[in-house]
Amino acid sequence: MSLTVGFLGAGFMGRAHTHALTRLPLTDDRRVERAILLGRDADRTAAAAEHLGFDRATTDRAEAVTACDVFYVLGPNDVHAEASVAALDAGCDVLCEKPLARSATEADRMVAAAEDSDAVTATGFNYRWVPALRYARELIGSGEIGTVRRFRGRYLQNWLLDPDAPWSWRCSADRAGSGALGDLGAHVIDLARWLVGEIAVVDGETTTHVDHRPAPGGTDQRPVTVDDHVSAELAFEDGATGQIECSRVEPGRANDLTVEIVGSEGSIRFSLPRLNELELVDADESGVRRVDVTGPDTPGGERWWPPGHVLGWDHTFVAENAAFLDAVSEREGYTPDFATGRAVQRVLDAIQASAKAGERRSVHSESRRD
Amino acid sequence: MSLTVGFLGAGFMGRAHTHALTRLPLTDDRRVERAILLGRDADRTAAAAEHLGFDRATTDRAEAVTACDVFYVLGPNDVHAEASVAALDAGCDVLCEKPLARSATEADRMVAAAEDSDAVTATGFNYRWVPALRYARELIGSGEIGTVRRFRGRYLQNWLLDPDAPWSWRCSADRAGSGALGDLGAHVIDLARWLVGEIAVVDGETTTHVDHRPAPGGTDQRPVTVDDHVSAELAFEDGATGQIECSRVEPGRANDLTVEIVGSEGSIRFSLPRLNELELVDADESGVRRVDVTGPDTPGGERWWPPGHVLGWDHTFVAENAAFLDAVSEREGYTPDFATGRAVQRVLDAIQASAKAGERRSVHSESRRD
Amino acid sequence: MSLTVGFLGAGFMGRAHTHALTRLPLTDDRRVERAILLGRDADRTAAAAEHLGFDRATTDRAEAVTACDVFYVLGPNDVHAEASVAALDAGCDVLCEKPLARSATEADRMVAAAEDSDAVTATGFNYRWVPALRYARELIGSGEIGTVRRFRGRYLQNWLLDPDAPWSWRCSADRAGSGALGDLGAHVIDLARWLVGEIAVVDGETTTHVDHRPAPGGTDQRPVTVDDHVSAELAFEDGATGQIECSRVEPGRANDLTVEIVGSEGSIRFSLPRLNELELVDADESGVRRVDVTGPDTPGGERWWPPGHVLGWDHTFVAENAAFLDAVSEREGYTPDFATGRAVQRVLDAIQASAKAGERRSVHSESRRD
Amino acid sequence: MSLTVGFLGAGFMGRAHTHALTRLPLTDDRRVERAILLGRDADRTAAAAEHLGFDRATTDRAEAVTACDVFYVLGPNDVHAEASVAALDAGCDVLCEKPLARSATEADRMVAAAEDSDAVTATGFNYRWVPALRYARELIGSGEIGTVRRFRGRYLQNWLLDPDAPWSWRCSADRAGSGALGDLGAHVIDLARWLVGEIAVVDGETTTHVDHRPAPGGTDQRPVTVDDHVSAELAFEDGATGQIECSRVEPGRANDLTVEIVGSEGSIRFSLPRLNELELVDADESGVRRVDVTGPDTPGGERWWPPGHVLGWDHTFVAENAAFLDAVSEREGYTPDFATGRAVQRVLDAIQASAKAGERRSVHSESRRD
Repeated sequence: MSLTVGFLGAGFMGRAHTHALTRLPLTDDRRVERAILLGRDADRTAAAAEHLGFDRATTDRAEAVTACDVFYVLGPNDVHAEASVAALDAGCDVLCEKPLARSATEADRMVAAAEDSDAVTATGFNYRWVPALRYARELIGSGEIGTVRRFRGRYLQNWLLDPDAPWSWRCSADRAGSGALGDLGAHVIDLARWLVGEIAVVDGETTTHVDHRPAPGGTDQRPVTVDDHVSAELAFEDGATGQIECSRVEPGRANDLTVEIVGSEGSIRFSLPRLNELELVDADESGVRRVDVTGPDTPGGERWWPPGHVLGWDHTFVAENAAFLDAVSEREGYTPDFATGRAVQRVLDAIQASAKAGERRSVHSESRRD
Repeated sequence: MSLTVGFLGAGFMGRAHTHALTRLPLTDDRRVERAILLGRDADRTAAAAEHLGFDRATTDRAEAVTACDVFYVLGPNDVHAEASVAALDAGCDVLCEKPLARSATEADRMVAAAEDSDAVTATGFNYRWVPALRYARELIGSGEIGTVRRFRGRYLQNWLLDPDAPWSWRCSADRAGSGALGDLGAHVIDLARWLVGEIAVVDGETTTHVDHRPAPGGTDQRPVTVDDHVSAELAFEDGATGQIECSRVEPGRANDLTVEIVGSEGSIRFSLPRLNELELVDADESGVRRVDVTGPDTPGGERWWPPGHVLGWDHTFVAENAAFLDAVSEREGYTPDFATGRAVQRVLDAIQASAKAGERRSVHSESRRD
Repeated sequence: MSLTVGFLGAGFMGRAHTHALTRLPLTDDRRVERAILLGRDADRTAAAAEHLGFDRATTDRAEAVTACDVFYVLGPNDVHAEASVAALDAGCDVLCEKPLARSATEADRMVAAAEDSDAVTATGFNYRWVPALRYARELIGSGEIGTVRRFRGRYLQNWLLDPDAPWSWRCSADRAGSGALGDLGAHVIDLARWLVGEIAVVDGETTTHVDHRPAPGGTDQRPVTVDDHVSAELAFEDGATGQIECSRVEPGRANDLTVEIVGSEGSIRFSLPRLNELELVDADESGVRRVDVTGPDTPGGERWWPPGHVLGWDHTFVAENAAFLDAVSEREGYTPDFATGRAVQRVLDAIQASAKAGERRSVHSESRRD
Repeated sequence: MSLTVGFLGAGFMGRAHTHALTRLPLTDDRRVERAILLGRDADRTAAAAEHLGFDRATTDRAEAVTACDVFYVLGPNDVHAEASVAALDAGCDVLCEKPLARSATEADRMVAAAEDSDAVTATGFNYRWVPALRYARELIGSGEIGTVRRFRGRYLQNWLLDPDAPWSWRCSADRAGSGALGDLGAHVIDLARWLVGEIAVVDGETTTHVDHRPAPGGTDQRPVTVDDHVSAELAFEDGATGQIECSRVEPGRANDLTVEIVGSEGSIRFSLPRLNELELVDADESGVRRVDVTGPDTPGGERWWPPGHVLGWDHTFVAENAAFLDAVSEREGYTPDFATGRAVQRVLDAIQASAKAGERRSVHSESRRD
């Protein structure tokens, strides 16, 4: 099997997905040709293409989307919709990084374009591919913790704690849609829906603790028009409730995504800094069991190493790419797809609206469980 | 210095305060005579008085409150107000366990009686006397974590997780006022106000996961008319926000009170199962520092042991009793007093009202910081 | 039941045992009169007696041991033997703090005096009374971890890390016998024998990292003639092996006693800073289970509080005193007694001899398992 | 820059090094051609070559070593020496997995062949490339923990705990040299020498808890002629001491390598299951600091991700291969080389001899610090 791929974006996500693609042949005998890299600056894009092993570079989107089977949208949030729709229109299968869009309305356009096509789509919720979280979902599904009653999710980062950390597009409502909410909350809401179920009502609070930041390389201050902290209470359709919190200004936490699912007969806790572990509580036995979720018998672990040989953050991208490209090859559905991304976005929009109005909001959704 | 004390209640709290009183002479040369124990059943009260070292027992409240300098109200919530007012009217100083009352209205009567007297009053918020939490408060007060932005508080227990755990007065709204909210939330809200400041607005959710329970020793089911789970978002007057959660049905957590205070320059985390430790984050240094708060240089530690000789839960009662009886002897004010207990109750009432109404509620308070 | 007790020593151990005695009436209806306190300085001893609630003070040992039923030897190691023998000769039951003696030879004299009497004796190995460690022993005894193969024990402290920490009798071979070995190693060896079994061969290393220290309150340097660090490999009689290490110069560890027992089917780990917890491994299930050993169903927990209400270091002294005084009252044997203390001392002596000779040493013992 | 490589071995280590090589172009613009794979079975080797992306397969060692610039010896211990020498003689640079040899004598031959060549050699001590351990070494080197006094190292696995786990070449003294000692101890001793310094004297114990195992796929029992547990006390040349322990029969520990270095002013602790973390003690501040060693400012982290995006076990192989192939390209020395591997082997041999003799042994070494 062989596929050609094109990327929009050669930054953090471009590198992460390229690393993932290089490892695929060793995990499943798949050949993926990195055909074309799309960027804005010709010289820099050419250099990046060389470094990341792409056959060629371009600054012409039309050229890019016609030169590959599968297109990856890895740029800033404000290009997600336009680039994804262009790629879909050109017949590409598309993986778009999260958050899928800046708003549910924008996501609607993307889902419509996907539905008008035969494409396989993906939203880049890579944490679904952490073996420990897949194992957690299996445990929940098999009734190990009884009826789920409570979801707790926190995603805490510190990269904007320093008021002198420079402004970027991630600080702009126009370009990013929202701040911690879309960037970090998207992951937490995706996991909440995936692990527990559809969310019916939200009650959110957003804050911007640092509302101006220096321009990159400069001294003039630019306004921060997005939140750097968000919290919300959730009500799930099936009766469970939840609490989430996301921050870009949490001291000492570089990248701490922690989720806990509490049921009538047990609970499960995962924390990203200890990605290979789960904490399990079984109401019938005493204490908290810390389990290493490593080795070939764990979900997704069959492609890696013997027990105790820990995986890292980037291993999630290998699994994600393998599953997505499998679906592409087999012309089957993939989840989380664009519809999933939109369903998450609807919850994010509802949280933002709730925070603005100071009152609870329903998630008006035709969103489906996936 | 010598004082006579009377107790209402010889159960869990009666034992805890008795243990505390026995140790006082060794920590501060104070002599406290356990003069009289008040109970409902003459025989059992006499036996308890013998065991706990009280000079005599009675079932007559009037006799009890006239037979001592200081009266401890340690019975169920529904006797707090009546017994406290009786003791105040009889000229006693009064320590009443938490929650001070079943409602702010009931607490108003108690505060009024206290104000009409010269009495020293106390509400039994014993966790203020954990050395690690006192140290946390010192750090916050000295600006170590910058401006406080966020409070997180959870108090999780599992004693009602089993649906067959028997009904008790703690399951009755009439007798207890509320469930997890009053029993556990009172501690969390007290710590929130003590560590961060006054609470202005709340947004609460309450749930009763198990709504019938077998009568003690029997098989017929009685209705549970209080919550067994509560969560709330808090807005503090000074701009910080917070999130709390309390549960009696959390698998695997016998008694897990965890609070975290996050500021612009650091954070502090305390968890009751590791009562001698704090986790400190300083935004200027890397990582999380786990500190043992033991030894004579820690707040309250001067009465105990060398560093590393850990304290337990009941040591908080020794410190609480010492401070309260100091205030009694010196005729000085003590905090947390009845007014503090009422201020906490106002927040609890607002959470309950918010949960019922499904919308945010202001805490209508003349409550003061203490 | 009523007993009179006398103490030699009103320092750290004097205070710890006094606190324990004050709580006994509340745990088992026993009345213990603190009759007489023996010290070297009349004024200071009188003040201490007043503070600790002793009826009177004396500087005359003969007077002390004739004025009480039970005598506690809580002074420096160099008075253990002489005071214990005097008390035994006077007909007292005797509790002596650990290490029982400065050498096995000295311990022989104490055991001989005990055997010549009808006395109940005790060596102050208080850690045997930690509920978590008692539970560990039960688990081992019931075969939960299969055949024991390995013992790991570390007792690390930092109070002599600073080279300017003042010299004390604990730095003198004449007065203390040894350093970290006797002070900390005695506890570790006692636990090793109690949890695993008799020790046959040792292979030890001792070091003195700081060999001079300033005189207390002065500037002249005094020689440190004992070890501040010791390690040893152990071979148990039944085939298990072990490794121990003790230090007074370990950075950051105020009082860290950690033991781990590894069997063919599981393992158990205890660490004093988290005195209420055990870590359990069952080879048949995945991961490490962290168990809170609190509540009335745990060994010794019946005298304390509901689950999750953590105990501290000094609770071990209450249990120890209760058990010892029970044995005194019932005229039954108590362990760990003087013979136990001697058996431990024989291992300590063998470690010291091994370290000196640079080769393995048998523990020449008629020592018995207890 | 371009190099051709050949591998002996397509098992666990073959896969690990192949994964590493695929990622190199993305980290340092190096092109490495996987030219030839050497195996014993023609069909299986051909299939593995296809899967792992080697140009061709062979069962002829002479062909293999003449078809590449760099040869990787990744097979069982008993082929290390012969294959390495053949590759050196053919002019290859050589990376050989650990332990370098079955004995120091065998290692001598390999070092001699290396010295007779211009080759760059490497021993596969991949844990030197864990960013957290590199950072630990920097801290030690810069005096952060003062004078090193103590090394503690444990490498615990559980894959042979089950007595029915099948026999393999790793259970044979002829083929493996030793058991836990060579397999796990080699890593621990390498880290001890790298972090602390040369080892002068050892005092070891070895045990074989399970001395027969079923033949693979069969039921007849084969003898286990190597240790499954080893412990040793170490004396370093510069005065520090240490304690190590390795096991293949430790319940619940799949792959737990833990090292702790204790100095006069602080300590450092690393544990493989939490590969991205260090625990640091600074004697001048209170407590233990847990530091995430992630992000571009950490040693080796510049090739990976932003802070908090954790690495896994296999990232060490990328760094190891990059450094080794750098040295190959630049014709510079690489450490750990064959001489390092031999120096480690000398310590292992001394431990084995000590265990056999029941007495301490000097490490007769011309081994050098590296």
